[in-house]
Amino acid sequence: MSGATALVLVAHGSRREASNAEVRAMAGRLGRLAGERLAVSAGFLELAEPSIPEAIEAAIAAGAREVRVLPWFLSAGRHVSEDIPAQVATVQARHPDIPIHLLGHAGALPGMAELLLTAALPE
Amino acid sequence: MSGATALVLVAHGSRREASNAEVRAMAGRLGRLAGERLAVSAGFLELAEPSIPEAIEAAIAAGAREVRVLPWFLSAGRHVSEDIPAQVATVQARHPDIPIHLLGHAGALPGMAELLLTAALPE
Repeated sequence: MSGATALVLVAHGSRREASNAEVRAMAGRLGRLAGERLAVSAGFLELAEPSIPEAIEAAIAAGAREVRVLPWFLSAGRHVSEDIPAQVATVQARHPDIPIHLLGHAGALPGMAELLLTAALPE
Repeated sequence: MSGATALVLVAHGSRREASNAEVRAMAGRLGRLAGERLAVSAGFLELAEPSIPEAIEAAIAAGAREVRVLPWFLSAGRHVSEDIPAQVATVQARHPDIPIHLLGHAGALPGMAELLLTAALPE
């Protein structure tokens, strides 16, 4: 792995493999952008693998001393507010010495509105 | 309305009213950022109102001479690739003189990976 900090991009997971592939592609793009700063992987809440706990465990097994979890969700529904925190807490309890930070969901990240506006404005 | 170009932010719609409110809040934020450049509203594929055709029709009725439609979706599933284009085409057929541009979905917009990385990197 490329660093001591890992990032797990967490998505819902889909029966459509193309959607899961799109998530993995975004994780790959993030990893290339991050270079040595972050080792990036993808994890799925359901319907695809690896699961969120599996992805976090794999990052720790690969040497991460800190894990950051970014929910690739647009709105703060039950998955973001309950399911993902519960799964993160389970892994955190198994690794009390490794900080696992749950970040805000993608749809509410700072700069998101500006990015949408740039895409929406006529050239 | 604040301009001759309208933007409709299109989301799936949810039984959770808080999720729909989050979409409307994003549309509001976009409208404030856009100022006179774009009149921004929200439309929903299902489970919430207004529908996508209703939102586009409302923008045209308010004076838009061009409408841009931005799918607030992370992956290019059936909704993005089939359902939303079909609904946009229906309205376009009723208003052949008003260009209605369907933009790429949010998850694949240029700059998205960079925005996620900025949020994910430790301070």
